[in-house]
Amino acid sequence: MSKGRLEAFSDGVIAIIITIMVLEMKVPHGDRLQDLAPLLSVFLSYVLSFVYVGIYWNNHHHMLHATTNVTGAMLWANLHLLFWLSLFPFATGWMGENHFAAVPTALYGVVLLMAAIAYYLLEQAIIRAQGPDSILKRAVGRDWKGKLSLVLYLLAILLTFVSPWIAEALFVLAALIWWIPDRRIERALSSD
Amino acid sequence: MSKGRLEAFSDGVIAIIITIMVLEMKVPHGDRLQDLAPLLSVFLSYVLSFVYVGIYWNNHHHMLHATTNVTGAMLWANLHLLFWLSLFPFATGWMGENHFAAVPTALYGVVLLMAAIAYYLLEQAIIRAQGPDSILKRAVGRDWKGKLSLVLYLLAILLTFVSPWIAEALFVLAALIWWIPDRRIERALSSD
Amino acid sequence: MSKGRLEAFSDGVIAIIITIMVLEMKVPHGDRLQDLAPLLSVFLSYVLSFVYVGIYWNNHHHMLHATTNVTGAMLWANLHLLFWLSLFPFATGWMGENHFAAVPTALYGVVLLMAAIAYYLLEQAIIRAQGPDSILKRAVGRDWKGKLSLVLYLLAILLTFVSPWIAEALFVLAALIWWIPDRRIERALSSD
Amino acid sequence: MSKGRLEAFSDGVIAIIITIMVLEMKVPHGDRLQDLAPLLSVFLSYVLSFVYVGIYWNNHHHMLHATTNVTGAMLWANLHLLFWLSLFPFATGWMGENHFAAVPTALYGVVLLMAAIAYYLLEQAIIRAQGPDSILKRAVGRDWKGKLSLVLYLLAILLTFVSPWIAEALFVLAALIWWIPDRRIERALSSD
Repeated sequence: MSKGRLEAFSDGVIAIIITIMVLEMKVPHGDRLQDLAPLLSVFLSYVLSFVYVGIYWNNHHHMLHATTNVTGAMLWANLHLLFWLSLFPFATGWMGENHFAAVPTALYGVVLLMAAIAYYLLEQAIIRAQGPDSILKRAVGRDWKGKLSLVLYLLAILLTFVSPWIAEALFVLAALIWWIPDRRIERALSSD
Repeated sequence: MSKGRLEAFSDGVIAIIITIMVLEMKVPHGDRLQDLAPLLSVFLSYVLSFVYVGIYWNNHHHMLHATTNVTGAMLWANLHLLFWLSLFPFATGWMGENHFAAVPTALYGVVLLMAAIAYYLLEQAIIRAQGPDSILKRAVGRDWKGKLSLVLYLLAILLTFVSPWIAEALFVLAALIWWIPDRRIERALSSD
Repeated sequence: MSKGRLEAFSDGVIAIIITIMVLEMKVPHGDRLQDLAPLLSVFLSYVLSFVYVGIYWNNHHHMLHATTNVTGAMLWANLHLLFWLSLFPFATGWMGENHFAAVPTALYGVVLLMAAIAYYLLEQAIIRAQGPDSILKRAVGRDWKGKLSLVLYLLAILLTFVSPWIAEALFVLAALIWWIPDRRIERALSSD
Repeated sequence: MSKGRLEAFSDGVIAIIITIMVLEMKVPHGDRLQDLAPLLSVFLSYVLSFVYVGIYWNNHHHMLHATTNVTGAMLWANLHLLFWLSLFPFATGWMGENHFAAVPTALYGVVLLMAAIAYYLLEQAIIRAQGPDSILKRAVGRDWKGKLSLVLYLLAILLTFVSPWIAEALFVLAALIWWIPDRRIERALSSD
């Protein structure tokens, strides 16, 4: 299995996921500004999921960049990740249409959690295939970002039943954690 | 016809099929956990089809890997395979929405059977184009996996009318047969 | 504009068109075989369109293969072709849902005609860019296939109002004309 | 981040956007010509958006062509552009279904404006990364086309409430401005 085709297939699936999510935002029948109002929560859910899928695409690329050969275990770990990402449109649509109600928000958290676990499993499959001198192992280190987000998603799922807004805040926080250090690493790299 | 473009087009179609299947899982209107209950069979159908499309993508890649030139017959055999794969979202949706009822389960089996036949025809088209020293011929041997799955799908279609659950079990069994040896071959290859 | 990206973009759009056409075949609510009966015409329309889009993809590839540089005129002629191809799902769905009624069949013919004209314009744009020694010019010759299909589509549109079935027969005939010689040319080429 | 994968992902998303827009043109239930009449405004909106997305795809390619390395800022500026482009199907559908009513036309203008701003930000991110000798900086010059379109979109949004047709005319005008000079530059380049 060549890395190029794995990347191309993953890119294709992620590009479709990020784009069909917008289909959950149904065109309203009226033509006035207030006809858009019920769509606000759908739109905000879409923005959040767009950012998350963007982060996954970005990190997925970096991870495969540090990969040399592709094993069967990696291939299935990758499909497993794509499976959970493919549930984003459904989870986003349900949360958005129900204006961030508790159960749909918790389900959204479960999908985020499962995608994060799948990402971690893919990372481990690559590291195992690379052996003791794994480039990826050195790059991710103890992977505190991965572990912290798992904790945040779990916390968010539990706190949904106190208030869904705490959960939403934790989802935004986890996205920021992934988003900001990417730029820091990049600066570090470009200063070499 | 270059192999690269055939692969890229097939990857594109398969990536879209695997992703739009999720659109058959319609967002429910209520916001409680029990509103998700009627979707359980749709979800399980989706998981099964996701695994099948993943297996096809994986094997399709291996088959094309052992291919050097692309003939017109191969091109149309490939489009024929993509045609049957493109019916997965429809067959999956019908089976899931009807909670694994007999006729939709049988139709799902027919689509699996036709896709397996199309895959076999593509394999034969490639072997014929490669002549007596076909690399693919040596790789697939007598292709017992391909022939066994045809028998399993046929059996499943017939047994649907005894109980659809026997059919579902056979679909899962056929998927496992394809899934497991892939890893065994890989280990054999990596131990060289 | 590199040829590679033009090919990749066209492949992407064509792969999506060929796949989303299947979404017009809505999952029926009942779970009996007779619930599929009203979908027969939608299914047959889908098969016809799948073959047509497959033929376009195949020929599009051959045409670009004989292309060296990409000009702005070619790029817009290509987008113009993709525009008419993008109307296939709509025209297919309308014809299928109305069981090959006269007006939807005529509209389907109009979309086929416009796509064929767009294909011809793209061909001419490439030939013009290649100058007097155009490789494509020699390959297509007087392009009797292109001209004959225009006549067949026009005839089909007119004869729809006598009987839509004559039109359908002409659509199938035009597809066969494109499909068969492809294999003949290939044999000629491979016998060199 | 390699430029190739950024291009491939952007191409994928843009190819999906341009194709799923057609799904907003719902197949009508009747089979007569007058059943298509209510779809005329949806069709015209689709044509306009197809041209706009085509222009974006074309210019996006030219811009990345003048790019050497990919930074994190460029990656997120690119995702930001894809986000606004992904709202085209929604804005197009709403404007079309409401026959170019004032508020949906204004929203369409807002999406065009935001996409144009996102495009400008991506341009600036690339120029900043390239430093004082930026190839892209020289290519776009003072970018009068980019600035003029911002003014036209703003004007269109405001004038929607006088008459939506003035806004539509301005949208067409802005598209023409982008479309025509592309061919002029190309001729200039090919005369070298």
